[in-house]
Amino acid sequence: MGDFELTCPVSPAPATVQMAHGSGGTAMHTLLETVFWPAFANPLLGQQHDGAAFTLNGARMAFTTDSFVVRPLFFPGGDIGALAVNGTVNDLAMCGARPLYLSAAFILEEGLPLETLKSVVESMRVAAAAAGVHIVTGDTKVVDKGKGDGLYITTAGVGVIEHDRVIAPSAVCIGDAIILSGDIGRHGMAVMAVREGLAFESPITSDCAPLVNPVQALLHQNIALHCLRDLTRGGLASGLVEIATTAKIRLHVHEDAIPVHEDVRGACELLGLDPMYVANEGCFIAFVAASDAERALKTLGAQARQIGNVMSAHQHGQVTLRSAIGVTRIIEMLNGEQLPRIC
Amino acid sequence: MGDFELTCPVSPAPATVQMAHGSGGTAMHTLLETVFWPAFANPLLGQQHDGAAFTLNGARMAFTTDSFVVRPLFFPGGDIGALAVNGTVNDLAMCGARPLYLSAAFILEEGLPLETLKSVVESMRVAAAAAGVHIVTGDTKVVDKGKGDGLYITTAGVGVIEHDRVIAPSAVCIGDAIILSGDIGRHGMAVMAVREGLAFESPITSDCAPLVNPVQALLHQNIALHCLRDLTRGGLASGLVEIATTAKIRLHVHEDAIPVHEDVRGACELLGLDPMYVANEGCFIAFVAASDAERALKTLGAQARQIGNVMSAHQHGQVTLRSAIGVTRIIEMLNGEQLPRIC
Repeated sequence: MGDFELTCPVSPAPATVQMAHGSGGTAMHTLLETVFWPAFANPLLGQQHDGAAFTLNGARMAFTTDSFVVRPLFFPGGDIGALAVNGTVNDLAMCGARPLYLSAAFILEEGLPLETLKSVVESMRVAAAAAGVHIVTGDTKVVDKGKGDGLYITTAGVGVIEHDRVIAPSAVCIGDAIILSGDIGRHGMAVMAVREGLAFESPITSDCAPLVNPVQALLHQNIALHCLRDLTRGGLASGLVEIATTAKIRLHVHEDAIPVHEDVRGACELLGLDPMYVANEGCFIAFVAASDAERALKTLGAQARQIGNVMSAHQHGQVTLRSAIGVTRIIEMLNGEQLPRIC
Repeated sequence: MGDFELTCPVSPAPATVQMAHGSGGTAMHTLLETVFWPAFANPLLGQQHDGAAFTLNGARMAFTTDSFVVRPLFFPGGDIGALAVNGTVNDLAMCGARPLYLSAAFILEEGLPLETLKSVVESMRVAAAAAGVHIVTGDTKVVDKGKGDGLYITTAGVGVIEHDRVIAPSAVCIGDAIILSGDIGRHGMAVMAVREGLAFESPITSDCAPLVNPVQALLHQNIALHCLRDLTRGGLASGLVEIATTAKIRLHVHEDAIPVHEDVRGACELLGLDPMYVANEGCFIAFVAASDAERALKTLGAQARQIGNVMSAHQHGQVTLRSAIGVTRIIEMLNGEQLPRIC
């Protein structure tokens, strides 16, 4: 959870929870600002977006949590179990931490086939092994039939920060290169394609994957790494706007440089969605010193691209995008509900 | 999560999740044994029941999680918010840890009045302050109307273990005194009374409270403290059976010594429930060396009672209870569903 100032006007606050409150856009940020942050205010909350960092006995640690309510439970490239492990692993990685231990709390719906549960748990086992973490504690609750969509999973994670750097929006500098680790929009469209019954020659596969290794590689290469953000709910656009507003800077990105898989672009057009706002689960942006951009790209591999730069300070934060046809427009945070229940 | 052997025969495993799988009894333990533990097997899981303990940079830490799905959201003496904070705080306290940081993940139902959410969040703020913990990170998801009973909360917690003792079933010794911190059954009956519309002269109030101070007091008094267990789902009976089976010991307790409030006893009789199996949220048992029993009672205050002793080793674990009329019977773990959705 971070510290935001909204750049766009917000419509009068509704009196009840809306689907848009879960979509990672302006409605969710309004909820955080008006309900959660005032009540829980403390120096660690608001320090960073993807987790809290604290020091204990000289050890710097990161701590984070996420609930997963994706519908359907299984989709090409993953399921709610893989998502629940990788989501929390990636939030720790984005704090510059090496993930160590996860908790897993299950809310099961009465009548859920045990075979479904076993299959999800097996995915979690595989994902935890791939990310090098252990699931060390857990909980199980059951809710009445009709109250739960099969199962919801909440994971929390503890990781260790094995360096002295500050990796946070506050560390971003004017001139920094913005590096994108891979093509965008696959997770959200993989889930939506199943939900909407869209057929493609080859199905769109979620990018759901742990981001521990690429981040550790950047750290080991001693890249001047200033900020990391995984591009989940709200997609690349929201990630950029969040960092711009928190750091009070202006970012400029080039649409040409942002890779989108052809099938993802097609599915987005069919559903009237902008890939810039579609969720990813294995994709992140890194802000690095311009002088280290080349080395960062080499470290992250052939899929990575420099998509833009930090241009200047800006009181409220601003993101501009130069489109493929040469028009420059302002990118806003996701407004309203675009893709509910994709994680 | 602990390491159990069941002492009673289990009926053929059902192919779907049942409400009983969430009630803290044999069905839940079967689920843990057949689904979760085999998949997530690692040295930390199974080490202890209420949380995992690990060492990082010389600091001993505890980590735990719980989901909360109580129905109704508000009840005399508390609400889902207070429960979500105290539940995780108490699991850390039962590991002998001083709770430091909590995460809070919310699954909100579309249409939930924001006033309800604010009220729950305010309870969490008050409970966190009372327990001396900070809520440092969180998450919000929204599920469709009809899927969620208003809200579910999952908290995870990190605490520090500031002593060298092992507080676990494995540390329990023959002859240990079993100390109960207060009267039992209030939380479960407070929730059930609201749900069933039972009216009493004065309403039964949940015992929902943080257990940090009494545990820290036992530690500071240097009591020879061997094991702690809070008496949540499954109540006192299940707590005793769990420790007996894990430690492979025989416990003997005296019904006479177990305080039950008159209204709680009345409500239990009305609903055909045994207070021994009713959940508490501010009540625990401590296993202490017999020579320290008096000092432990003095430290815990006037509500505490010695209810029994560790009698002998026992291959499968066994709990016997001498009733008020002098009959001795074996106490089993909760079998089936007694009180669904009380936490």
